[in-house]
Amino acid sequence: MATRPRTPQPSKRAQPAHTSSGTSFAESFPNSTKVYVAGPRGVQVPMREIALSGGEPPLRVYDTSGPQGFDVRQGLPPLRGDWLRGRAVTTAESLRGGDAPEAIQRVARAHNGIASVATLPRNDYPVLRGRGPVTQLYYARKGEITREMEFIAIREGMTVEFVRSEVARGRAIIPANINHPELEPMIIGRNFHVKINANIGNSAVTSSIEEEVEKLRWATLWGADTVMDLSTGKDIHETREWIIRNSAVPIGTVPIYQALEKTGGVAEDLTWEIYRDTLIEQAEQGVDYFTVHAGVLLRYIPLTARRMTGIVSRGGSIMAKWCLSHHTESFLYTRFREICEIMAAYDVSFSLGDGLRPGSIADANDEAQFAELKTQGELTRIAWEYDVQVMNEGPGHIPMHLIKENMEKQLEWCDEAPFYTLGPLTTDIAPGYDHITSAIGAAMIGWYGTAMLCYVTPKEHLGLPNRDDVKAGVIAYKIASHAADLAKGHPGARAWDDALSKARFDFRWQDQFNLALDPVTARAYHDETLPAEGAKVAHFCSMCGPKFCSMKITQDVREYALEMERKAAQFRESGGEVYVRGEGRKRERERKA
Amino acid sequence: MATRPRTPQPSKRAQPAHTSSGTSFAESFPNSTKVYVAGPRGVQVPMREIALSGGEPPLRVYDTSGPQGFDVRQGLPPLRGDWLRGRAVTTAESLRGGDAPEAIQRVARAHNGIASVATLPRNDYPVLRGRGPVTQLYYARKGEITREMEFIAIREGMTVEFVRSEVARGRAIIPANINHPELEPMIIGRNFHVKINANIGNSAVTSSIEEEVEKLRWATLWGADTVMDLSTGKDIHETREWIIRNSAVPIGTVPIYQALEKTGGVAEDLTWEIYRDTLIEQAEQGVDYFTVHAGVLLRYIPLTARRMTGIVSRGGSIMAKWCLSHHTESFLYTRFREICEIMAAYDVSFSLGDGLRPGSIADANDEAQFAELKTQGELTRIAWEYDVQVMNEGPGHIPMHLIKENMEKQLEWCDEAPFYTLGPLTTDIAPGYDHITSAIGAAMIGWYGTAMLCYVTPKEHLGLPNRDDVKAGVIAYKIASHAADLAKGHPGARAWDDALSKARFDFRWQDQFNLALDPVTARAYHDETLPAEGAKVAHFCSMCGPKFCSMKITQDVREYALEMERKAAQFRESGGEVYVRGEGRKRERERKA
Repeated sequence: MATRPRTPQPSKRAQPAHTSSGTSFAESFPNSTKVYVAGPRGVQVPMREIALSGGEPPLRVYDTSGPQGFDVRQGLPPLRGDWLRGRAVTTAESLRGGDAPEAIQRVARAHNGIASVATLPRNDYPVLRGRGPVTQLYYARKGEITREMEFIAIREGMTVEFVRSEVARGRAIIPANINHPELEPMIIGRNFHVKINANIGNSAVTSSIEEEVEKLRWATLWGADTVMDLSTGKDIHETREWIIRNSAVPIGTVPIYQALEKTGGVAEDLTWEIYRDTLIEQAEQGVDYFTVHAGVLLRYIPLTARRMTGIVSRGGSIMAKWCLSHHTESFLYTRFREICEIMAAYDVSFSLGDGLRPGSIADANDEAQFAELKTQGELTRIAWEYDVQVMNEGPGHIPMHLIKENMEKQLEWCDEAPFYTLGPLTTDIAPGYDHITSAIGAAMIGWYGTAMLCYVTPKEHLGLPNRDDVKAGVIAYKIASHAADLAKGHPGARAWDDALSKARFDFRWQDQFNLALDPVTARAYHDETLPAEGAKVAHFCSMCGPKFCSMKITQDVREYALEMERKAAQFRESGGEVYVRGEGRKRERERKA
Repeated sequence: MATRPRTPQPSKRAQPAHTSSGTSFAESFPNSTKVYVAGPRGVQVPMREIALSGGEPPLRVYDTSGPQGFDVRQGLPPLRGDWLRGRAVTTAESLRGGDAPEAIQRVARAHNGIASVATLPRNDYPVLRGRGPVTQLYYARKGEITREMEFIAIREGMTVEFVRSEVARGRAIIPANINHPELEPMIIGRNFHVKINANIGNSAVTSSIEEEVEKLRWATLWGADTVMDLSTGKDIHETREWIIRNSAVPIGTVPIYQALEKTGGVAEDLTWEIYRDTLIEQAEQGVDYFTVHAGVLLRYIPLTARRMTGIVSRGGSIMAKWCLSHHTESFLYTRFREICEIMAAYDVSFSLGDGLRPGSIADANDEAQFAELKTQGELTRIAWEYDVQVMNEGPGHIPMHLIKENMEKQLEWCDEAPFYTLGPLTTDIAPGYDHITSAIGAAMIGWYGTAMLCYVTPKEHLGLPNRDDVKAGVIAYKIASHAADLAKGHPGARAWDDALSKARFDFRWQDQFNLALDPVTARAYHDETLPAEGAKVAHFCSMCGPKFCSMKITQDVREYALEMERKAAQFRESGGEVYVRGEGRKRERERKA
C-alpha cells in the first residue's frame, strides 16, 4: 500500500534560506519516515511510520506535518488541484467579469490592488467560486463520494461510506475551501479521532508574518490538525495569504477581526457590507472555516452584566458593543442566510462562535452561555438548509462537574453537529499553566464527545505564545485528544500505547523515545541522568539502578509464573504421577494458609 | 485571629550557609505573608495571606511551606513537642532498657552506633514509643480531641468534631508519628481538601543528601502535602534522618527498600526479622506512613504473567520474587497483625501498597489489580482492629473511562478508607510529559473521591527528577487537586478562583500574578511580551493590544446593560410616561425584528 513521494518534490533552493533547522521532520522524529498510502482513485495519504527494533513491526501514526522542504515563498503544491475539476465551479476570471455580484467584483478588484500579495504565487491555481453549493455536505447528501472523503477514510481507518454518511448526517465536517488546494483533507466529528486546533496570529503589539508561518509549520509538525489565524494587527490579509499557501491543514479565521480593522477598530462603525466583503475576500483566499458569533443576540447581552468576567470572547464583545450602540439585533443573526449563501459557494464551514462563553469558573454554565448555545442550534439547522457544514464552539472555563452538561446540551440542541471547545479550563488559579488546567477539561469533554479541542498555551491570559509555548500547547492537547480516543474506544488508538509500553517493558530505550509524542524531549530527559550510550541498551534505568529494577524482577517473575503454568498443565495431563501431584498439593496447602 | 510568629525564631546564622535563595518564600510568593491562626488550646496554624490592591480583602490559602529560615543542620523546631505529654508513651531511655522487646533494644543499639546520625540534633526530643495504641484513630474513637485535630480543623475550615468523626470512621487519617514533633498536622480524607504527595529520594545511581533535603523544602514550598522518601542507595538511614528533622509535612517511606539494602539487594534473602527491625528503626526516626505491599499474595502473581508490563511496583516485584523463590505466602501478609502492633505504638499510618498496579493502559483494571484491591480491604479492617490508621494506594496507568470503577470498588471493598493514587496516567504515549498525562487522571479520580494524589514528574519513566521537575510535578498536581476540590464543591475552594478572575477582569495585573499558583512564572510570561512596568497597570494586554480588548469592551457593555436595567426599572415604576414608554416599545419592536 505504501509508496514514497509521487507528491511534488521540494524546491531545491528553498532549504537553506527559508526552512529553519528546528522544524525538521527528521530531527523531531528520529527513525520516522513519511509514507503515503494510496487510495482507489489515486489519493496519496501521508502517515508517519516509526521503525522499531527487536523484530517489532513499524507503527504508523496519523500525520499532520504536511509536505516538507518547500520554500515558504513558493507555498505548498496544490494536492487537491485536480480533484475540483468537474465540480460546478467558475474561475475567478469569469467571476471577476460580468456574472459575479457587484460586491464580489469589488472585492476581487481590491485583491488585485494588494501588491504584496501579488508577490506570492498561487501555484497558478485560479480563484474558484461555486455556481451553486459545492460543499462536502452537498455531495455527501447526494450520495457522492469525493476525493476528500476517500483521503479521509484511509487517514482514519474507516470505510468511505461511513465518512460520507457522517458528513451527510451533519455529525462530521470536512473543512475544505475549494480555494485551498494545498490542503490534506481531514474530518472533524466525534466518531473519528479527536482533533486539535492551534491558534496563531500576530496582534497589534508584536510578531511578524514570517514568525506566523513558522508557527504554523511548527504547530502542524507536532500535531495540530487545524490552525486558526487570529491576526489582528496590520498586514492581516498578507499574513493570511502566506499562512494558507503554506498550510496542509484547514485554516480557520474570525472574519469580524479583519472587518474591525477596516473600521479603524471602531465596533460601532461595522456594517453588514464591510463584513460581507471580508467574508468573500477570505473565502477567495481559501480560509476553510469561519468563526461567526451569530448567536450573540441583543436580548442575551444583559444576562452577562452581573457576571464575574462579563464577555471574554473578542468577537462576542465586538458584536455586543455593536448591538448595544445601535440598539438593534446583530447583523450576523439577521443576515445569517446571506452568510450561508456565500459560504456554500466556497465550501467554507461554520464554526458558530460562543461569544458568551464563560471566562471564569464563577460564570460556568450560566443563563447567557446556554441561551446562546440554543441559538447556535437554531443557526446550525439553517446552515444545513444551505448545505453548509457546521460545527459549534464551546467553552471556556468550566469546573469538572459541569463539563458533561455542556456536551449533553450541545448534542441535543445542536442536533449532534460537531462540538469544538476551548479547553475547558478546570480552574482559574494557574496562569502560566493553563495548557494543563485546560488539558484536563479537554480530555474529559473529548471523551464525552467533543470532536475538536482548541489548544491553550502556557501563555494564555498573559502574553502571545512563542515557539516553545505553541509546542507545549500542542503536546498537551495531543495528550488530551489521544486520552479521549482511548476512552471512547477508538479502534486505532490503543496500538500506540501498546507499542510504547512493550518497548518500555523490553528495555528498548531508543524505541521508547522514538514512539513518544515528543521523542526529542524524552531522549533529552533520559540523557540528563544517564548520558552514556550504553545506558540506552541497559536493562535498568536511573530510577532504581541496576540491582533494583522492578521491570527486571518482573521478567524473572514472568518466567517463573509461566513455568508454574506449564507444570500445572503437565500435572493435569499426567493425571497422577507422585512427584508432580506432590508439588500440586504443596501449592494447594499454601493457598489455604 | 491571626498573629505573627510565636513559633520559634529561625537561627540567625543559618541563612547564608544552608538556605538557597531559590527556596525563599518571599521571592516565590510576592506580596504574601505567613500568618498564624490561633486555636483554642494554643495551636498556631500557618496560612499564606496574599495581599491585594484596589481595596480587595487579602486571600488566605492553605500553606505547606513550613517554618522558614532554619538551618538544615539544626532541623525544625518541635512544634508538637508539648502536645504528646500526657499520652501513654514511654521514652527511648526506658525503652532501650529492660521493658522493651529484645528486637527493639537491638534496633535501638544499632541506631546509637550510626555516627553520622548522631551529628544531627533531635531538638533534645526523646524517642517515644506508646505503651499501647497512641494513634489518632484510637483517640478519635474514644471521643478525645487531640491538638492535631484542632490544628487541622482550623487548617481545613471544618469543625473539630467533624475532623474527629471522620478519623474515627476511618474515612480520614492524620499521619503523625509521635517521633515527628516537627510536623504541622494535616489530614487525608475525601471530605477535606484533596492532598498531593511528592516523591523524592536518591538512588544507587545519583543524587546527594543535601539535594534530597533541598527537594523536600522545594516541594513543600510549592504545595506538597506529604513527601515520600524513596531512597534506595547508600546512606539511606542518614538521608531519612535529615529529611524528617527538616520536614513540617508527613514523611512516608517504603520500608522494604531499606530492608532489601540490608540483604545486599537479594530479594530472596529478606526475612521477617530484617523487615520488622527496619519498621522499628524507621518508626523511631519519625516516619509518618509506611507503604506496605501486604496485598501481593502468592496466588495473585501468576495473574500478572501475561500482562503487557507485568509488575511495575518496586515493592510489589520484590515481594513477588520473594514469594516465588520461597514458594510461600508473603510475610507482609502472614505477619500483618504484628506489623499493626508496631505501627500502633508509634502512630505510623498504613499506606497499603498496590504492588500489582497496572503499568500500562493495556493492563488497567485487570484481575491481578482488583484481586489485590480486595485484599487491601481485608487488611484495612485488620489494621482498624489495632487502631492503626490506613489509606489504600491505587493506580497507575488507567484510561479515563476505567477510572471511576477504581474509585467505586475501593470505596466498597475498603470501607471508605482514604484512597491514594499515583496519577493515574491516562495514556502511555507521552514520556517527558507524564505530569500532564497523569494530572488528567488525578483530577478526575480526585473529583470521584480520592483523598491524596501522588505526583508524577516530567521525568517519570526516564530519569530522576531535578528541582525543575519536582516543581513541575507539584504545580501540575496542585492544579489537579484544586480542580477536584472545585468539582467536589469543597466550601473553601471557589474563593481562590474568584479572587483571581476578579483581579483579571479589573486589570489588576500584579494581583493576578500574586494570586497565581506560581507567581514567578506568571509574571515572567507577561514580561516576555510586555516587559514595561507600565503594562502592569494597563487596561489591555499583549493578546489583543490596546484598541481591541474584550475585557475593556465588556466593561462598557456592563455599564450599558446596567443602565438598561435601571431604565427598565424606571419604566415599570413610572407606569406610563410617554417618553419612557416610547423607548420601551422601541426595544420591543427591535426584539421582534
